Amino acid sequence: MTDFAATKAMFHIPDGMIYLDGNSLGPLPRGTADRVGRVIADEWGEMLITGWNKAGWMEQPTRVGDRIARLIGAEPGHVVMGDTLSIKVYQALASALEMRPDRRVILSDSGNFPSDLYMAEGLIASLGRGHELRVVAPEDVAANITDAVAVTLITEVDYRTGRKHDMADLTARAHAAGVLTVWDLAHSAGALPVDLAGAGADFAVGCTYKYLNGGPGAPAFIYVAPRHADAARPALSGWLGHAAPFAFDSAYRPGAGIERMRVGTPPVLALAALEAAMDIWDRTTMQDIRSASIALTERFIKGIEATCPMLTLASPRDADQRGSQVSFRFDDGYAAMQALIARGVVGDFRAPDIMRFGFTPLFIDAGDVDRAIAVIADVMTNSLWDRPEYKTRARVT
Amino acid sequence: MTDFAATKAMFHIPDGMIYLDGNSLGPLPRGTADRVGRVIADEWGEMLITGWNKAGWMEQPTRVGDRIARLIGAEPGHVVMGDTLSIKVYQALASALEMRPDRRVILSDSGNFPSDLYMAEGLIASLGRGHELRVVAPEDVAANITDAVAVTLITEVDYRTGRKHDMADLTARAHAAGVLTVWDLAHSAGALPVDLAGAGADFAVGCTYKYLNGGPGAPAFIYVAPRHADAARPALSGWLGHAAPFAFDSAYRPGAGIERMRVGTPPVLALAALEAAMDIWDRTTMQDIRSASIALTERFIKGIEATCPMLTLASPRDADQRGSQVSFRFDDGYAAMQALIARGVVGDFRAPDIMRFGFTPLFIDAGDVDRAIAVIADVMTNSLWDRPEYKTRARVT
Repeated sequence: MTDFAATKAMFHIPDGMIYLDGNSLGPLPRGTADRVGRVIADEWGEMLITGWNKAGWMEQPTRVGDRIARLIGAEPGHVVMGDTLSIKVYQALASALEMRPDRRVILSDSGNFPSDLYMAEGLIASLGRGHELRVVAPEDVAANITDAVAVTLITEVDYRTGRKHDMADLTARAHAAGVLTVWDLAHSAGALPVDLAGAGADFAVGCTYKYLNGGPGAPAFIYVAPRHADAARPALSGWLGHAAPFAFDSAYRPGAGIERMRVGTPPVLALAALEAAMDIWDRTTMQDIRSASIALTERFIKGIEATCPMLTLASPRDADQRGSQVSFRFDDGYAAMQALIARGVVGDFRAPDIMRFGFTPLFIDAGDVDRAIAVIADVMTNSLWDRPEYKTRARVT
Repeated sequence: MTDFAATKAMFHIPDGMIYLDGNSLGPLPRGTADRVGRVIADEWGEMLITGWNKAGWMEQPTRVGDRIARLIGAEPGHVVMGDTLSIKVYQALASALEMRPDRRVILSDSGNFPSDLYMAEGLIASLGRGHELRVVAPEDVAANITDAVAVTLITEVDYRTGRKHDMADLTARAHAAGVLTVWDLAHSAGALPVDLAGAGADFAVGCTYKYLNGGPGAPAFIYVAPRHADAARPALSGWLGHAAPFAFDSAYRPGAGIERMRVGTPPVLALAALEAAMDIWDRTTMQDIRSASIALTERFIKGIEATCPMLTLASPRDADQRGSQVSFRFDDGYAAMQALIARGVVGDFRAPDIMRFGFTPLFIDAGDVDRAIAVIADVMTNSLWDRPEYKTRARVT
């Protein structure tokens, strides 16, 4: 069993704060500053250019990728880090479309994160070959998987409600219709067990600044199934995805397997921060995380529903159908969330009316949940959010 | 006049090392570790998600972009940071091709950095509309600018020889033929004065881990001329390039001007390292840098030619026609460079036979040049490189 008290001690959480927003930006692991400081001083500072070999910077994207592979059920050697989630969506989608040249539809759903849809739009406009981005309601995805569809672009866990798609089922339906799948794991990686290999997923992408605690703007990852890895053509064909980057050939030759999904020079400092955060994952398993996460979310839902009748559950009530977050609808949700944050209970707000709370067993325990419920009940039942200072909207992420 | 002794003191250079490879990876500014440490501890650690607003993370890409704009002659508000140079090449090139829909040629030269050519290849393959990447000899670029060309993709300073293109002249020739220009400033930004606005450049891109000292894998920049900035369509249309990222609209609407060239979540820690490095640039001007750089490179060429007849100058002899590096050809250049590095004179090797030395007045002075010449003369005239341990090639950048 995971010692969650020990993992909690590995994070810095500001005094008095109950941080239920690790699904937006994970908190700071205590080991990060030291690790990044050493990479700056001992590697960059002392090794300079030789750090690419001596300090293993060149292998960092696959070395860290392998540590994430373990959490998402990917085969070792088939995940690589780099760029941002949006860039990796573009690569996966462009590769998939080329593998289905006679089909024109990208199927997504209205619960997908907007940036994924924007990247698809941009790709379609660039290609200029009449592709269509078909966005249906989440519950209608399965019925819309037809042989007109080239690829599905689905975020497994909805960023607003936490509703979870059935990856294995949708992937099987897709394959039965000759459709490829791109899975966005932004709210899955580190949140719940993912079994990419078992589900037969074709491509997957994700970010590392949420449940994986890599820091603001931490690099993304991409997975390509072994059966496609030597055939996929990375639309973004940069030198570090070349078979021999340091031969400086004038023509592109894709590297073996997942290596070809690398693009430019890897972000060494950012990857060092992520690598420090990954140490914490050696202390647990995704099965332990999931059990603890369900216990926390069930406890939270029960406590809020018992005390806050004005809040309407927006997440699935069935724990099997949701990720590691719980969302409630409330018309003045923005103001209510500001009032909670002012009292140290940090969740976030998603338009138009979603109050979102993330539960990360690595650093949130039952006591935190109970304290959060008490604060929320006080704020909501006494309408403490109904003040002008909570209603002025700043830009939030 | 710049106090270069003062700027030199702002860098950490390992004891006994003469670092002539700042054109590959700039050395560590002394202020970097502290700045990054504070962003980690005080911003990420304490502010968590509110850092996006409170700590100004969201504006970081344009705030840092403005500091670089000053060095490259760009109009304020028209440079933004993010991703890698290869990704920014792709965006610039894709935008330019769409602005010249009836033309099919991307014109580049054989002195361009391979990754730029690879990205162009990848874009052409994705578009599938019969575009051609025409790669000519550097001296033939001008003659090949015709009305068949949509866009030129030229690195101003050759990464191997340091040969410098005439940006103003080629841009004028391009515009006369209705051709757009994408300038890669990888070996220009921080190396020599660049006047994007004066030259009328259309797009420019660059990296920040060379002369700008942002650290290994530091983020890239992109410039779009004000006259194009509200018309260019970023092929990579991510949420942070959206006009209203936090409205979470389902359809993409490009942000105003250069903002649309943002893609995903900005790399906050990496940008913090770069921001620390940019403080050093407040102590100097590109004119002072250029004068000092020419004095150093002239001194180096004179000293090497006087002592090492076996080395053949590969860089232009005319200082006006080269960047801030000096390269020599030598058949056993790889082994010779390893021998120099073993003696603390760090340059690098570029296949097939280029020994490359970068001169950065911020931390290299005349005494360093004289000491480097003495070491090189010793190694070359006494064939100290002719040992097996220097001939085994490791992967280098």
